[in-house]
Amino acid sequence: MNKHTPQSEFVTPEVTTGPLPASRKVYVKSDRFEDVAAPVRYISVHETANEPDLPVYDPTGPYTEEGFVADVEKGLERKRTAWVKERGNVEEYDGREVKPEDNGGATGKYLARQFPTHHKPLRGTGSEPITQLEFARAGIITKEMEYIAIRENMGRKAALEEARKNIDEGESFGAELPEFVTAEFVRDEIARGRAVIPANINHPEAEPMIIGRNFLVKINANIGNSAVTSSVEEEVDKMVWATRWGADTVMDLSTGRNIHNTREWIIRNSPVPIGTVPIYQALEKVGGVAEDLTWEVYRDTLIEQCEQGVDYFTVHAGVRLPFIHLTADRVTGIVSRGGSIMAKWCLAHHKESFLYTKFEEICEIMRAYDVTFSLGDGLRPGSTADANDRAQFAELETLGELTKIAWKHGVQVMIEGPGHVAMHKIKANMDKQLKVCGEAPFYTLGPLTTDIAPGYDHITSGIGAAMIGWFGTAMLCYVTPKEHLGLPNRDDVKVGVITYKLAAHAADLAKGHPAARLRDDALSRARFEFRWEDQFNLGLDPETARDFHDETLPKEAHKTAHFCSMCGPKFCSMKITQDVRDYADGLSDNEKADLERMSEEERQKGMAEMSEKYAEVGNKLYVEKG
Amino acid sequence: MNKHTPQSEFVTPEVTTGPLPASRKVYVKSDRFEDVAAPVRYISVHETANEPDLPVYDPTGPYTEEGFVADVEKGLERKRTAWVKERGNVEEYDGREVKPEDNGGATGKYLARQFPTHHKPLRGTGSEPITQLEFARAGIITKEMEYIAIRENMGRKAALEEARKNIDEGESFGAELPEFVTAEFVRDEIARGRAVIPANINHPEAEPMIIGRNFLVKINANIGNSAVTSSVEEEVDKMVWATRWGADTVMDLSTGRNIHNTREWIIRNSPVPIGTVPIYQALEKVGGVAEDLTWEVYRDTLIEQCEQGVDYFTVHAGVRLPFIHLTADRVTGIVSRGGSIMAKWCLAHHKESFLYTKFEEICEIMRAYDVTFSLGDGLRPGSTADANDRAQFAELETLGELTKIAWKHGVQVMIEGPGHVAMHKIKANMDKQLKVCGEAPFYTLGPLTTDIAPGYDHITSGIGAAMIGWFGTAMLCYVTPKEHLGLPNRDDVKVGVITYKLAAHAADLAKGHPAARLRDDALSRARFEFRWEDQFNLGLDPETARDFHDETLPKEAHKTAHFCSMCGPKFCSMKITQDVRDYADGLSDNEKADLERMSEEERQKGMAEMSEKYAEVGNKLYVEKG
Repeated sequence: MNKHTPQSEFVTPEVTTGPLPASRKVYVKSDRFEDVAAPVRYISVHETANEPDLPVYDPTGPYTEEGFVADVEKGLERKRTAWVKERGNVEEYDGREVKPEDNGGATGKYLARQFPTHHKPLRGTGSEPITQLEFARAGIITKEMEYIAIRENMGRKAALEEARKNIDEGESFGAELPEFVTAEFVRDEIARGRAVIPANINHPEAEPMIIGRNFLVKINANIGNSAVTSSVEEEVDKMVWATRWGADTVMDLSTGRNIHNTREWIIRNSPVPIGTVPIYQALEKVGGVAEDLTWEVYRDTLIEQCEQGVDYFTVHAGVRLPFIHLTADRVTGIVSRGGSIMAKWCLAHHKESFLYTKFEEICEIMRAYDVTFSLGDGLRPGSTADANDRAQFAELETLGELTKIAWKHGVQVMIEGPGHVAMHKIKANMDKQLKVCGEAPFYTLGPLTTDIAPGYDHITSGIGAAMIGWFGTAMLCYVTPKEHLGLPNRDDVKVGVITYKLAAHAADLAKGHPAARLRDDALSRARFEFRWEDQFNLGLDPETARDFHDETLPKEAHKTAHFCSMCGPKFCSMKITQDVRDYADGLSDNEKADLERMSEEERQKGMAEMSEKYAEVGNKLYVEKG
Repeated sequence: MNKHTPQSEFVTPEVTTGPLPASRKVYVKSDRFEDVAAPVRYISVHETANEPDLPVYDPTGPYTEEGFVADVEKGLERKRTAWVKERGNVEEYDGREVKPEDNGGATGKYLARQFPTHHKPLRGTGSEPITQLEFARAGIITKEMEYIAIRENMGRKAALEEARKNIDEGESFGAELPEFVTAEFVRDEIARGRAVIPANINHPEAEPMIIGRNFLVKINANIGNSAVTSSVEEEVDKMVWATRWGADTVMDLSTGRNIHNTREWIIRNSPVPIGTVPIYQALEKVGGVAEDLTWEVYRDTLIEQCEQGVDYFTVHAGVRLPFIHLTADRVTGIVSRGGSIMAKWCLAHHKESFLYTKFEEICEIMRAYDVTFSLGDGLRPGSTADANDRAQFAELETLGELTKIAWKHGVQVMIEGPGHVAMHKIKANMDKQLKVCGEAPFYTLGPLTTDIAPGYDHITSGIGAAMIGWFGTAMLCYVTPKEHLGLPNRDDVKVGVITYKLAAHAADLAKGHPAARLRDDALSRARFEFRWEDQFNLGLDPETARDFHDETLPKEAHKTAHFCSMCGPKFCSMKITQDVRDYADGLSDNEKADLERMSEEERQKGMAEMSEKYAEVGNKLYVEKG
């Protein structure tokens, strides 16, 4: 479907529902609050394995509940509204009228259908706490914080018991991962600004989640229609699809027409926080001419999106007039869409960016809805050649200043990062961000570690994402195989999400997250014991794993077979381990020490004389113990 | 096709030929030797770009020459035989008779057809130099070394000129990448054992290449039929296909029947070095029963494969009896097929491994044909849980001892590495290898940085591969999406190769290889200037990039369009850079300094009072210069 397809043919978006393979969703109840229960997914392991089901973090929302019937026309349950209202300091009001330009002037059959229900927006009033940051500073544990403590904590008790047997601390580069996540820990991290809970009070459908380096590394999936292609139905489906495979947040980067209506359908049905780049819509409102942008149009767009329930805004307020010329000698200039819009505006008017000059006003608006800043890196490098240059770092320093201003206003902040960075420059970028932005969460796009593989940029960037996640980035924005080439379809979204889930997990492992290893070890045991179904189900993408297996060994019997296609039925390396274990069980500690000592002696003597002799000694040992 | 398919239906393998898109192969002639000319691929850039064609390293062999007609029944030209013979110290002899067990006893229609031509093998005689290591130590620059200097050097002069403008030294972790590769440098690296040229004197079809940390990082692709599936035709096609996309070496890991004949077809048609694991074939010769293996069977297999022209042998001589019990408490025991074969043998006989006790005899055999050791890591971790444990490192230390023995015999050596290693343990593994193995080249499988993504292990391992390549690994053994699940098909081979090419390149970039950035920068410029065809062609996989682009914007006109599907025709971030450049060109140095100074002053004052004021100053600057 392209932009010329009449939208009057709009049908209800279809979304994918039902549990993931061998999985059941459990809501773990809070001891503290009666109406707080956070989801965890348990993956069932084959009965013969004699292992408990494996708990994993679950961002999929109710769509993966057993028997859940999605009513996309109605949207998800608005559970969190009660929490917001009971805390007070908010008012319900009529809200802004939807205007034709909100949908790019689309009319008649070209106008996407409005979401059927209109909910009156809430907004904060007065100086009492509204945002999670303000509550945290006031020492108040919100229900969102409690919810997050439960969901982040999943499996950690078991992990700690395991850890006593087998300590593997990782290298955290200064992150302070707690043994056990408490609501108080969540509150403290929020109060310090080291973590954010993107949770617009007008997006009560979303399940609270946290982004910070002392929690599980999160991932974001970008969706959104463009002026050239794709429809509302596709985007709603992609949003649910992305969360099904593990997206922790979703950004709607729609451009062109129908931005307002598309976003409404997405938000009302989204169990995860939704981010946007408001300047994209503002630009559409002025006919795509950057120099025609005004603070008034932008402000109006912010309020429109705050009322709809967008949870975080990318704001490119660090693209300042005095930095723009620093990009002139770059290989790839300014590649951020938002950054270049603002650069064009600044140059056209020879004025400082209104995002910068009006920053405090932006803070006031966002505070009233508890929308989180994602301070955009409009001057990020678009090629490895431009990484860590003066333009990038001048902007980053500015984002650090703006962070402190936002914090002053009680607004939560995360910082966006690149982009394209070769491996040897990644850590310097991370370290600089931590230093100049007061440990506000870093949220990076990749980075791509080389520019030479269009079509595979989920991988060039997955490498960088895993590394920067290890070094301290709190959320990784996915890159799909279509990056630089086209808009991702459903399959691309899945590949992007899975790639970034594995990168985030690799980062958690390397940081020494106390519970991360549980899943690797459970899967490794399944693999080693030829529990094929368990191996599929414990993985990030059971469907693909099963399909790949069946391509080579299609029969059902092969999924209980104690061999794999590499080695065939006659011989299998993994089977030999049982012999090894039996042998090792038969060795006394003294015998083991003898083996070690003998091997060391032989090493000293060198090879020349030892070979035949060792064989004799080995035999003797055998005879003695036999 | 499976093992029951009659092989009498054997048809000539079909292979893919013809130049890669927009590419031409040039053979750069040596100044030193008349009959030495090494290939380089030039990628043509669109005329309007006003850029020279980009040279890239080319391991694809004659198959990508313009107009090349492959005669798979005849094999590639045996150019290097003359070089070997003219150096002397070799004799031609009748060679070993092919026995039924060489093909697993396959007969009649189950026996794969023999390669049509039989070439008498060569072998070294006496104590004068035979191997590249011996020639290097004797101060002799072989034609292979000269060839390698030319091919490794590609583009480096241009890069050095570029580097003067834009220095980016990388972080080499002690690697000593030269500004310019000379044959003398190649000789010296070989003499020190820091690099190897896998080039059996009986594989004259192969183009000389080098593996060492001070050269381009290389990649290996595994192919091979198994007892369960796949045929000779498929494997020959896969070999050519793998090199087409950039495999620098290929390992034939065939098991089951027809190992000998399959390998012959592969070697005779391979432009890259071929590696094998001889114990696989030896095991087939004793009916798949590990305990029935004998030194005699193994020795016979080595000679068989030396005569055929295998360039390097994986030999698991570090799996020693005293280490086997160290694996008993692992999550995944012993997962290397070769390692577990030897462990089973050692336990069954309670004897030290014959690979260890007969190591010097193995060296003597391999020296006579200049076959390179790839000392196998039979005790490598099969899960991140087991990484860097005592078993793995005890074996690695042994490989270090064996390296010195092989060197004493004049035999070239590389060392195999894991496997599965979480990110925070990769560098320790690399550093230990460099230390205990005297800088012999490291050749690692991945490593996979997490175990939770079956179906995506090309990516979990691509992350580890890029990192360990950066830290000093000389060759990366690919992992395909089918890893742990099934045998890779043609598509999987391509995905595995491209993934590892990009990982190797990311490593070269991070190490500061003087020429690596040329390709990234050329592609980035093409991307920035909307030269779509150039962007496709300069990438590792032009076909996939083009297909992805055309999915969204199929029309031919869109490939010359100055926009992409993300932003649409109305607005494009990259176009704005021209405005920025014009603006920057108009600023004097003083004006730039003023901007910097003013922005610093504003930063000091803070946001409160500065906003409107700055706008005025900016305007004033504009007025003054306008």
